[in-house]
Amino acid sequence: MERLKKQMEFIIEVDKLKDIIRQTNLTNGERKENDAEHSWHLALMAVFLSEYAKEPVDVLQVIKMVLIHDLVEIDAGDTYLYDEAGNGTKAAREQKAAERIFNILPGDQAEELFQLWQEFEDRKTPESKFANTLDRIQPVLLNDATEGRAWREHDVCIDQIMSKNEYTSQGSDVLWAYIQEVFEKNIENGNIKRSL
Amino acid sequence: MERLKKQMEFIIEVDKLKDIIRQTNLTNGERKENDAEHSWHLALMAVFLSEYAKEPVDVLQVIKMVLIHDLVEIDAGDTYLYDEAGNGTKAAREQKAAERIFNILPGDQAEELFQLWQEFEDRKTPESKFANTLDRIQPVLLNDATEGRAWREHDVCIDQIMSKNEYTSQGSDVLWAYIQEVFEKNIENGNIKRSL
Ligand SMILES: [Ca+2]
Repeated sequence: MERLKKQMEFIIEVDKLKDIIRQTNLTNGERKENDAEHSWHLALMAVFLSEYAKEPVDVLQVIKMVLIHDLVEIDAGDTYLYDEAGNGTKAAREQKAAERIFNILPGDQAEELFQLWQEFEDRKTPESKFANTLDRIQPVLLNDATEGRAWREHDVCIDQIMSKNEYTSQGSDVLWAYIQEVFEKNIENGNIKRSL
Repeated sequence: MERLKKQMEFIIEVDKLKDIIRQTNLTNGERKENDAEHSWHLALMAVFLSEYAKEPVDVLQVIKMVLIHDLVEIDAGDTYLYDEAGNGTKAAREQKAAERIFNILPGDQAEELFQLWQEFEDRKTPESKFANTLDRIQPVLLNDATEGRAWREHDVCIDQIMSKNEYTSQGSDVLWAYIQEVFEKNIENGNIKRSL
């Protein structure tokens, strides 16, 4: 069965997402999170927080997007939100990665995967706006739970954070209001700098 | 907002799933897999392998089950399939864990989570049969990709494997046939013992 063989090859290939390390620390503070764990966490958030999506969402579509949104980082690596140089070359690196990784699947599923990823990146549908909101707030929750460790490590100020969160509010007013309170608390206790 | 506060507390609590270590090795052979990574992998498999479910399945329901099926291990720990003593106390330990962890959520969502977990454990619906099949074949794929490392570490024989896989075939004939071939290959090359 050529089709099943390709699917299984893909399933094994994506195991590599467990090696892609992010900047966020786990709540136990003992190590940094990887992309597979991050993607699982977002999917679980989609299950239990979808009531806060700004527009009604197809939860399955949100979950599919968050499950696959970082697969391109298997080749392209995780580009930290505040790494300006890395973000300049990110799109080209990720497109090349998508072409290699997604095309391991049979044609119809590779096509579905390209469409899912593009939808996530374009942030135009209610589902992709909400998925992007989850992607942005999850590291904030982990940073908050670790006394702002990643913010302090990278000496981040609130203006930088806000400039990278211009889309976060688009997926959910409620979650955005919650996260703004988290930012405020962390500015007050010095985990996030007021200015550079 | 009391409801959102409970949901966020739950989202933070489940971060601990990333610390629950399984017996399976990652395909790179460098460390063992944790439950969050495993759950992500199963969810992705549900997206791309559901065409092989024995009966038609609601993919969202399958995904929800695999995302949450190991949460009880945050308190109860991972019980290795071939640990007979551990498996004797597993049900009681996991029930207690479910009561603490699931009840962090608001009442309606705690109830939904208990039902999802019970459905997964009962293996009666097409969705839960398929979810359990995915849960059993994923470590087989990783063991196969690491030259049978976990099988060799635990000196496992094929009779033990087959006795623990009595339900695996219930969710998918196609995937079960595929996995039987994987077992056969690994018996032939000595990664799985023919008898104790
Ligand atoms: Ca990313």
